[in-house]
Amino acid sequence: MRTDPRVARSRASILDACAEVLAEEGFSGVTIEAVAARSGAAKTTIYRHWDSREALMIEAFGACSGPPGPPPATGSVREDVRAVLTGLAAKLNESDWRATMCSLLDAASRDEGLARLHVATVAERRRPLTDALERGIASGELPADLDVEQAVAMIAGPLFYRAMVSREPLDAEFIDAVVTGTLPAPRAAGDRGTPTPDGG
Amino acid sequence: MRTDPRVARSRASILDACAEVLAEEGFSGVTIEAVAARSGAAKTTIYRHWDSREALMIEAFGACSGPPGPPPATGSVREDVRAVLTGLAAKLNESDWRATMCSLLDAASRDEGLARLHVATVAERRRPLTDALERGIASGELPADLDVEQAVAMIAGPLFYRAMVSREPLDAEFIDAVVTGTLPAPRAAGDRGTPTPDGG
Repeated sequence: MRTDPRVARSRASILDACAEVLAEEGFSGVTIEAVAARSGAAKTTIYRHWDSREALMIEAFGACSGPPGPPPATGSVREDVRAVLTGLAAKLNESDWRATMCSLLDAASRDEGLARLHVATVAERRRPLTDALERGIASGELPADLDVEQAVAMIAGPLFYRAMVSREPLDAEFIDAVVTGTLPAPRAAGDRGTPTPDGG
Repeated sequence: MRTDPRVARSRASILDACAEVLAEEGFSGVTIEAVAARSGAAKTTIYRHWDSREALMIEAFGACSGPPGPPPATGSVREDVRAVLTGLAAKLNESDWRATMCSLLDAASRDEGLARLHVATVAERRRPLTDALERGIASGELPADLDVEQAVAMIAGPLFYRAMVSREPLDAEFIDAVVTGTLPAPRAAGDRGTPTPDGG
């Protein structure tokens, strides 16, 4: 069954309008009235597509965060993680996106319904990173007993800290330090046939 | 020269009132009018003590974060870092404090003056951690070329990530994983007499 193209266009224009209002006002400042006015859609149309203001905002923010995308699969867990972090850093370096993310963390800390939607989105968004780590465990690049959830916090956390708490720009050197500091060095063992950085 | 005790009491009651309004409204919701009403102080009195609403809010939030405190100095960099992270985790596990911190990150992302005050406070607040790392370098427990600023992000970042982004409680097991994952294991060399994990 195909979606009616008029319905798809209506949804897309509402999402665009909501993303604009989000960038200006943050999560606590968005109203359905403002999204209706900006998009030209009726409030009843908006509520036909989304159960709640929170669900609309989360989808609009997800859309301007780009598609979660297929996990990079370079064959090296370090390169896969570097690719994921490079993408995350690019978003965190955009001041509008970073400000909207900060407003989401703030609003979620005051609204349980929004917090639940946010946590579900985080779980989906971190899949490229968890997939990369799980491939690394399967290939033997990472220890079999690695706690993937803890590893995600240790890999992604430093980027959020720099962008939001200490407010420093994220560059390739920092990403390098995180990759090197959180993932074990490639094994030198001949049985995997992979040249090591200093052996090749 | 001693501060007039009436002045000290007036400052303290304004700070308390501001902290209460902060917990309820967040950084973007505090007004000098609300602090004046809550504390019973005149607005002119408040402006005699603080240059700006931002300066008052940052000091009030600092006061409810507890004193920065003397850096722990247990003689082991791993134990010092564990002590600092245990204190940080306790604050991040308090939902009021965490919400106020989230509102600060949000407000700072939209207000350059507040961002500058925030960054100065972060620099001061992280001193127990940077001091611990510098003692570790001096004692030889940490590599002489350790980048302390990067290390702080890698040590504190995972806690902020869990508390604010993935919204998971922080426990001793996670702190342990961060300490173990970010600081080199104690050296095996006989000259320090410390048994290694697999050699003991």
